[in-house]
Amino acid sequence: MYFHKQELQHAATPDKPDAVYARKLQEVLGGQYGEITVAMQYQFQAWNMHIPGKYRDLVFGIGAEEMGHVEMLATMIAQLLEKAPLGITDEAVQADPTVAAVVGGTDIQQGIVAGAGARPVDSMGNPWSGSFITASGNLLADFTSNANAEMQGRTQVARLYHMTDDHGVRDLLSFLLARDTMHQNQWIAAAQELREEGYEELPVPSNFPQQKEATEVSYQYINFSDGAQAGDGRWASGPSPDGHGEFSYVPEPQPGVPMPPPTVPDARWYGTTATSNTKEKIAGAVQDKLHME
Amino acid sequence: MYFHKQELQHAATPDKPDAVYARKLQEVLGGQYGEITVAMQYQFQAWNMHIPGKYRDLVFGIGAEEMGHVEMLATMIAQLLEKAPLGITDEAVQADPTVAAVVGGTDIQQGIVAGAGARPVDSMGNPWSGSFITASGNLLADFTSNANAEMQGRTQVARLYHMTDDHGVRDLLSFLLARDTMHQNQWIAAAQELREEGYEELPVPSNFPQQKEATEVSYQYINFSDGAQAGDGRWASGPSPDGHGEFSYVPEPQPGVPMPPPTVPDARWYGTTATSNTKEKIAGAVQDKLHME
Amino acid sequence: MYFHKQELQHAATPDKPDAVYARKLQEVLGGQYGEITVAMQYQFQAWNMHIPGKYRDLVFGIGAEEMGHVEMLATMIAQLLEKAPLGITDEAVQADPTVAAVVGGTDIQQGIVAGAGARPVDSMGNPWSGSFITASGNLLADFTSNANAEMQGRTQVARLYHMTDDHGVRDLLSFLLARDTMHQNQWIAAAQELREEGYEELPVPSNFPQQKEATEVSYQYINFSDGAQAGDGRWASGPSPDGHGEFSYVPEPQPGVPMPPPTVPDARWYGTTATSNTKEKIAGAVQDKLHME
Amino acid sequence: MYFHKQELQHAATPDKPDAVYARKLQEVLGGQYGEITVAMQYQFQAWNMHIPGKYRDLVFGIGAEEMGHVEMLATMIAQLLEKAPLGITDEAVQADPTVAAVVGGTDIQQGIVAGAGARPVDSMGNPWSGSFITASGNLLADFTSNANAEMQGRTQVARLYHMTDDHGVRDLLSFLLARDTMHQNQWIAAAQELREEGYEELPVPSNFPQQKEATEVSYQYINFSDGAQAGDGRWASGPSPDGHGEFSYVPEPQPGVPMPPPTVPDARWYGTTATSNTKEKIAGAVQDKLHME
Amino acid sequence: MYFHKQELQHAATPDKPDAVYARKLQEVLGGQYGEITVAMQYQFQAWNMHIPGKYRDLVFGIGAEEMGHVEMLATMIAQLLEKAPLGITDEAVQADPTVAAVVGGTDIQQGIVAGAGARPVDSMGNPWSGSFITASGNLLADFTSNANAEMQGRTQVARLYHMTDDHGVRDLLSFLLARDTMHQNQWIAAAQELREEGYEELPVPSNFPQQKEATEVSYQYINFSDGAQAGDGRWASGPSPDGHGEFSYVPEPQPGVPMPPPTVPDARWYGTTATSNTKEKIAGAVQDKLHME
Amino acid sequence: MYFHKQELQHAATPDKPDAVYARKLQEVLGGQYGEITVAMQYQFQAWNMHIPGKYRDLVFGIGAEEMGHVEMLATMIAQLLEKAPLGITDEAVQADPTVAAVVGGTDIQQGIVAGAGARPVDSMGNPWSGSFITASGNLLADFTSNANAEMQGRTQVARLYHMTDDHGVRDLLSFLLARDTMHQNQWIAAAQELREEGYEELPVPSNFPQQKEATEVSYQYINFSDGAQAGDGRWASGPSPDGHGEFSYVPEPQPGVPMPPPTVPDARWYGTTATSNTKEKIAGAVQDKLHME
Repeated sequence: MYFHKQELQHAATPDKPDAVYARKLQEVLGGQYGEITVAMQYQFQAWNMHIPGKYRDLVFGIGAEEMGHVEMLATMIAQLLEKAPLGITDEAVQADPTVAAVVGGTDIQQGIVAGAGARPVDSMGNPWSGSFITASGNLLADFTSNANAEMQGRTQVARLYHMTDDHGVRDLLSFLLARDTMHQNQWIAAAQELREEGYEELPVPSNFPQQKEATEVSYQYINFSDGAQAGDGRWASGPSPDGHGEFSYVPEPQPGVPMPPPTVPDARWYGTTATSNTKEKIAGAVQDKLHME
Repeated sequence: MYFHKQELQHAATPDKPDAVYARKLQEVLGGQYGEITVAMQYQFQAWNMHIPGKYRDLVFGIGAEEMGHVEMLATMIAQLLEKAPLGITDEAVQADPTVAAVVGGTDIQQGIVAGAGARPVDSMGNPWSGSFITASGNLLADFTSNANAEMQGRTQVARLYHMTDDHGVRDLLSFLLARDTMHQNQWIAAAQELREEGYEELPVPSNFPQQKEATEVSYQYINFSDGAQAGDGRWASGPSPDGHGEFSYVPEPQPGVPMPPPTVPDARWYGTTATSNTKEKIAGAVQDKLHME
Repeated sequence: MYFHKQELQHAATPDKPDAVYARKLQEVLGGQYGEITVAMQYQFQAWNMHIPGKYRDLVFGIGAEEMGHVEMLATMIAQLLEKAPLGITDEAVQADPTVAAVVGGTDIQQGIVAGAGARPVDSMGNPWSGSFITASGNLLADFTSNANAEMQGRTQVARLYHMTDDHGVRDLLSFLLARDTMHQNQWIAAAQELREEGYEELPVPSNFPQQKEATEVSYQYINFSDGAQAGDGRWASGPSPDGHGEFSYVPEPQPGVPMPPPTVPDARWYGTTATSNTKEKIAGAVQDKLHME
Repeated sequence: MYFHKQELQHAATPDKPDAVYARKLQEVLGGQYGEITVAMQYQFQAWNMHIPGKYRDLVFGIGAEEMGHVEMLATMIAQLLEKAPLGITDEAVQADPTVAAVVGGTDIQQGIVAGAGARPVDSMGNPWSGSFITASGNLLADFTSNANAEMQGRTQVARLYHMTDDHGVRDLLSFLLARDTMHQNQWIAAAQELREEGYEELPVPSNFPQQKEATEVSYQYINFSDGAQAGDGRWASGPSPDGHGEFSYVPEPQPGVPMPPPTVPDARWYGTTATSNTKEKIAGAVQDKLHME
Repeated sequence: MYFHKQELQHAATPDKPDAVYARKLQEVLGGQYGEITVAMQYQFQAWNMHIPGKYRDLVFGIGAEEMGHVEMLATMIAQLLEKAPLGITDEAVQADPTVAAVVGGTDIQQGIVAGAGARPVDSMGNPWSGSFITASGNLLADFTSNANAEMQGRTQVARLYHMTDDHGVRDLLSFLLARDTMHQNQWIAAAQELREEGYEELPVPSNFPQQKEATEVSYQYINFSDGAQAGDGRWASGPSPDGHGEFSYVPEPQPGVPMPPPTVPDARWYGTTATSNTKEKIAGAVQDKLHME
Repeated sequence: MYFHKQELQHAATPDKPDAVYARKLQEVLGGQYGEITVAMQYQFQAWNMHIPGKYRDLVFGIGAEEMGHVEMLATMIAQLLEKAPLGITDEAVQADPTVAAVVGGTDIQQGIVAGAGARPVDSMGNPWSGSFITASGNLLADFTSNANAEMQGRTQVARLYHMTDDHGVRDLLSFLLARDTMHQNQWIAAAQELREEGYEELPVPSNFPQQKEATEVSYQYINFSDGAQAGDGRWASGPSPDGHGEFSYVPEPQPGVPMPPPTVPDARWYGTTATSNTKEKIAGAVQDKLHME
């Protein structure tokens, strides 16, 4: 059950409108690693979780926090758009070249569709998609996904920080950067605790009986490019992080196996096959041969 | 530059056709965490990388390896489909209920569109999308994304392992499971090496001057759900994994800030505003007031 | 700001698992008119709204309520999937034809991707999309969109009601049906109040000076199909609902205007044009003529 | 059966080319509420309709009319693009800053893909999608959807009206505005007639036996945000528009029900569960316990 | 301008309902190569065409014909769905295994969303997309695209022909097959006529001055796979179809050129670069070095 | 199996960065007819092919070549972005209007998401989609699709050639143009050889017994637009290219067949039907009539 409070977690008011920046900010609202993604990702992880207790409490709590981040960004974007121009005339551009920058750089749908408002899209106008989230039920995999999402997200916010000098915007971004710092640390800590408490281990999923995999290649670096430098990495020798093996370096793949012969499905799929190669094909005759009806 | 060799890395031939399983296998070919995703992700990371040497060699090599995994799965799927039925009659179902299972469980487009062949889609038929990949240029973020992709992928292959008892299929899956074990370990090792070599640190991106973030909330667990159990996790007290702070637990958020007043954009956006609330609106008069032309 | 409470608005537990129904229920969770849509739609309308007060309070409140509906459905789906089978063997199907129905009717990704969990997709597996929502800033348009969403949604829930006889599922659906009844009534009431308070009128947007439209066709039914029955509807004669005109019926369109001549863009767009039709084309000569560089 | 006549319903020729505006106009051609949407929506409603007569005649006729609107917009866009520039040099921009506006503001694919032509996309380049339309078979729901589509569409056209001062473009828009006026009125009138003729009532679908819903909450405004202003709306007291109930205001939700316990699906889904939390896990032992093969 | 006539081009009534087949038929209605695609493709080619006369008349005419094909398929699908079951009980399946086939094989949204009606989607439920069409303005390219569309389409209809023995359905398919035969022939004839009349030649676009391409590789088969059999094809020796060159076979590529050095963008993009590799990084110092503000 | 070599097929270095052009070039990397499309299309055709030998060798070889084209374009784009600006200030625009052009014309995600790198998207930012490819198993259809893809692709590259005067970029484009020339010729030659060798004929699929189609309309041009000019084309008289018929011109369609009566599905789909039109509807009564439970 969710409750809304008509306050913001942090101030979200720009010094002045900036329609071009309003578009850029859509990335961290509705992009692949925007706030809608993490809000939905954590909530679906909560609803799909198989253990009660602190881990589920964690994803519920952070999921709700991220909903509030979505709100702050949407509110900020609406204000950045408050003076969004409707159009542009040649005279206006001649008089002030800044106007030209605005024309090209705005999200046209923030105007025509939303009437100078925020939208559930990224900075290039692609709608947010349910395919952006991850909630597998395996918590070590999912917390790693979460850590990645917070890393990508903080990197994007850091880039956006340098694209404006508006103090109000930067103030909000500094808050988001700090929360991303927390959340990166938190998911890494949660992944560690999962491992320490024995819920999950590397390789994920650790419950799968590892002797059933082709163990001869479980710790081999097999080289499919023509450089030799990858052999110098710690992934090419020494113990593997899961503690189950020793890395080795294979400079080129073993000879492979021959490709299986091409398939020959039912003739009524009308693929091109060896049996379709006959100059004397006559429609009726083929029909007989194929037992088509 | 890429070269193709008409061999497979591992045998990829089923004991017998199974059109229902051919659909399920599409998930790890063309799904969010399928082999097309990792192949494309690693190659884009290579093309966008800013440092030469072992890390770029690594993503080039594994990217090419994954292309070969795509090929093994596509080849396997085509063979699983070799006896794909075209349709079904009531009589056939009455005679053999297994047939009914086949009808519903197949990917219809593997038949009608591909003529009993593999497709660049997931197990529900959604086409593979460029939005599935991650290549930010920040290697610690991207290697964490890679580790997640291999964890999700190995989990999916493990699930698929139990959905068939075909020895040929399981033999291929056991190979893929082993390579996913290697790749999970490898990306974790690569992330560690990046940190040890000083290229990147937590929080990502580590180059961003952390004093510019709102440091008072950088290590706080702020609770937005009504459970108290998240306070017991190691993300709520003790040193943070980045070594820069100490976690604390805030049982409920500080009072927020008031929402900014609603925006009032240009009247020609035709949003509903306070000034649009007038019973005496007459089209001509409004036009004057709005200076519309 | 959002707060989560670890309770549900209404009971959401099925009598027994049913993986086939778990897929069907995805429609009202993650479909075009599912609960994610209305939750996001109302919240974006709130963030983009230009007037404070009761209308904004309304969309904030119902938006949060709908988030709780998303949660109830996701929780229900996870429970319906609790016994989701991994696969199927021929023997199992021979022994029990019900099994065959399950094979075909399940959402494969609820299993392979979510580990027997809910997903942000519709009943055919299409991911939820930001393009499903409407938030234009014009409240009469948007409340009409909301009324439609609740009508479509209640119709879908009513259809789903007859697809199961599980008492737990039906109990949840009866709650959702009731809330959709409320919400249909509420948006219609809100639209009426907007009109009565003078914020907006028909035709939407009412602020646009109607004399600027081609008023000679503003209330004409112009017939482009060969039936004559549409002439019997009240949209073909009598006063129009906006109170500004009188409907009339035009049995066939006036003669149109000639199509403008085809465009002839720059030759370097390499479209096929009249000037490209010359037998004596010689690459060099063309280059000269086109002043290409 | 459809017939095409090589005339336009209304003149559709701009005074002069304007590649930036050609992009904006894509919104009402190929966007969520563009002319392709309404054309397809009305035609699918016709094909799916269950009653013959005036309502089906209506959707057939307006569907065909809207196809002609698609054509006028596509023709207009091609002419606006007739002088679309291929590229831009620094010198050109220095000489005339207007050029800069053009660079950024154009739809690149109108040039590179369509050779200076119209495309089935919106103003941000998203392709038109079948998910934009609504055709449920329930006519009261669908006519409400239609009314909304015409309201959103007319609002967008009104916004576009102010983004140009080209007389030819405005002339076409004034025609589209008038037809949207007609179509808004018409769908509202059709919805009223449906109700008067007893085909459908509120709440939709009216055939569903209302006593089967949780009637105790069918007319309650339940407050999930912290404002009290929504209590002043007519949706919070007085008779409901469907005539079946009386609105009431519930300032805060009743206590909810406890969440059901987390699900524990088959171990072979490899989710993280309580039983997976055991330090003494040994692959072989687990395999036995799980009866995995 | 479009006119609708309430007749069908050909009978479109099945002998009896078949909800499973109704789903399959969606492929040729709303799939990549379904009738919506060709209808929209030909119409956009007409609107974007740069020459008047017979070619434009052709695409206008066939575009309108294809709209009628969309209608016949939608009508057929609605009838196939007339007895679509709402759900299924275990008893029903036990009594009649055919029922199980129906459960899995239906398009769930044809029921829940469209109320037993047709939808603008393919056989796996993916919505039709504007990205399915091609209209480049270059007629030789586009007519080749059209020929391909009719080949793919006729192949799919042929496959569907064998998936049913319903005489009514087969009667409609036999009509569609015949029209696809006509349309394949027609586009090939139109492409030939374009070439004979000198509008366009191979290679497309023929206006581009061919001496500006890297002519040394314009007719070389360069081998990037390890087979030698491609050297036996007529694409590896002899005159090229465009009449401008002679094919040759290059058994393995020339040595390539070295990769350019990795890029080093502005540090504020926070990519991992050589300069970011410094153990003594201190936030403040970095800030100075980067001249960040 | 794929191997990567850290060389490029051709030089791919621009004279100088150009972030606006970096966006345009995305079209031929990740667009509908970009290099990812042809690379994936040819590889899927190889994996799905039913005959061994030269045709499969051909698609394997060209598929691998196109992967190298993807790489050259991605590398070029990264270099074009090397000086991509982060943002823009009013002062900068006032000082140099060129800057304004850059603001609007860049792909924002190349910056914020990829850190100044290439992305798997087209020039408007739409992600590459698996729905862009064609691999039907019918080789005459597929090779026609391939010829079209190379025609569309070469046309787009030719357009891009005129959008820059950078010698490095043009040098790469001249290489791609030449390879597209080869590939157009090659697919046309391969289609001819398929026909000469008797694998496939027109109409595709040639194995389908043509007497089963409605042969009376197999070679008729039936006119659905009001022009008469299409009657002058060679598609309206004379022998058809498949050698099986004679074209004829039908100036207007034969009278059609009446539309079938509207469907009347189960009442529990809650569509609007004639039986739902009853003023005396009472919920309980309806329930009885419908035998609803």
